[in-house]
Amino acid sequence: MIPRWQPRDPDWEDKVRRSFARQTVMALIGATLTVVRPGAVEIQLPFRADLCQQHGLFHAGITTTVADSAAGYAAFSLFEPGTMVLTTELKINLLAPAHGDRLRATARVIKPGRTITVAEADVFVRREGVEIHCARMSSSLISRPEA
Amino acid sequence: MIPRWQPRDPDWEDKVRRSFARQTVMALIGATLTVVRPGAVEIQLPFRADLCQQHGLFHAGITTTVADSAAGYAAFSLFEPGTMVLTTELKINLLAPAHGDRLRATARVIKPGRTITVAEADVFVRREGVEIHCARMSSSLISRPEA
Amino acid sequence: MIPRWQPRDPDWEDKVRRSFARQTVMALIGATLTVVRPGAVEIQLPFRADLCQQHGLFHAGITTTVADSAAGYAAFSLFEPGTMVLTTELKINLLAPAHGDRLRATARVIKPGRTITVAEADVFVRREGVEIHCARMSSSLISRPEA
Amino acid sequence: MIPRWQPRDPDWEDKVRRSFARQTVMALIGATLTVVRPGAVEIQLPFRADLCQQHGLFHAGITTTVADSAAGYAAFSLFEPGTMVLTTELKINLLAPAHGDRLRATARVIKPGRTITVAEADVFVRREGVEIHCARMSSSLISRPEA
Repeated sequence: MIPRWQPRDPDWEDKVRRSFARQTVMALIGATLTVVRPGAVEIQLPFRADLCQQHGLFHAGITTTVADSAAGYAAFSLFEPGTMVLTTELKINLLAPAHGDRLRATARVIKPGRTITVAEADVFVRREGVEIHCARMSSSLISRPEA
Repeated sequence: MIPRWQPRDPDWEDKVRRSFARQTVMALIGATLTVVRPGAVEIQLPFRADLCQQHGLFHAGITTTVADSAAGYAAFSLFEPGTMVLTTELKINLLAPAHGDRLRATARVIKPGRTITVAEADVFVRREGVEIHCARMSSSLISRPEA
Repeated sequence: MIPRWQPRDPDWEDKVRRSFARQTVMALIGATLTVVRPGAVEIQLPFRADLCQQHGLFHAGITTTVADSAAGYAAFSLFEPGTMVLTTELKINLLAPAHGDRLRATARVIKPGRTITVAEADVFVRREGVEIHCARMSSSLISRPEA
Repeated sequence: MIPRWQPRDPDWEDKVRRSFARQTVMALIGATLTVVRPGAVEIQLPFRADLCQQHGLFHAGITTTVADSAAGYAAFSLFEPGTMVLTTELKINLLAPAHGDRLRATARVIKPGRTITVAEADVFVRREGVEIHCARMSSSLISRPEA
């Protein structure tokens, strides 16, 4: 996760952390923001029995939830002051069953833009101490003036 | 939601309902399975303050979670006996802010297949009694022999 | 293809037809613009042996090319005067082998917007007089001031 | 483009080159296969005035066509003998206007599989001697027994 981009807001790190803290669904599922760099964010999520699909794996929607937040904050870290971030679209390929004791989502900006920023995220599931690449996502984030 | 497809498993409705009941994340977020037809499923999710992104809207990951389950079960309802369903990829366009008191995801199979089934879902958010089309998703579901 | 949207430019039909005529790749492959409505466009492409992948079917890229142009012009028909259209992302599910004597792509706007418009396209391949649904695409189109 | 995967067919390189030579659309547009490695392929396409959208840039469908072939052959290079490859879905983010004198698409396998292989491609456009990252694609490729 080597940052390639320059933030345009000196408050970039704090604004990401404050915004993440307001995402109530992150507290509900138990996700934590573990790394914040300019254009790159990591989120971790320990396994819980109430985050599963029908076979006891992390639900694909939960995998997507952490990947989406990571990508959104990777983008937001590069946004100008006075703006907010919204996901306009995302696509995720689920590469392996999300069977393990922790998800780790790492996201990075591929292309920053005034209006649309494109980001990507990889999700790894840890099983018996080894991380398996279980998902890859791309998404578009739009910058809007703060309400 | 007019079913266009013939189920290949006489147990199609019960197996969908049983499998949904095992998706623990649906109970965590408070989602319910409201319609099951051959190749078509509806899921509803009332608003809760702990399902939100930073501005108090439904988190895009939660919108995706209900859309993904609806599409997965739309596909599963057409699968042969002795098989299970996994999402291999999904793409969602977020069309409007998910600001309201309930999400309703309706999914349908676009193309059933022996290996890959393609499904779609629309998500509507209800605001002051009116439903707004807030997301549209397409996904690929794979049929695997039951473990 | 029932139009649901109101054009914001009285020149909507002519500007779509003029712009299509400037897409040189449409002439190269032999595609024609067959229907233009507010927010909805149809393009047809007869089979030619030089449009194929390795098994003699229409190449997925050619299927995508006609679907993308149809969706782009469906969006452009609703844009304000003095703007141009660019695709920012597209996703296509290939539902059946594109084996036949003609492609027909029909596109429609799902959600118009000031900045981002979301559109969809279906592609049908005609084989022995019967149309088969061979692809479904969603895309995001951005409106930019004309250069 | 460092190969990370082992081919399962000793004929991997020749079968990719033979199959590419049968993609008639590659000859039509003037694309050439410039690199073939296990799980990684590069295709180049010089600019021509008949490959354009309405503003004289490479059409997004043409960008997708070379990205799709590159990803398909990256996957095919890892397939078992006696199989063929089909794209089941692809998503592409167009990151910058494809304005320049050559496209170069590099693709690599992200996750090989018995049924579904996931691949990615980047497309670069060369303008005044400098390459600009203009597109990023992910796709799913399915392995089928040869007809």
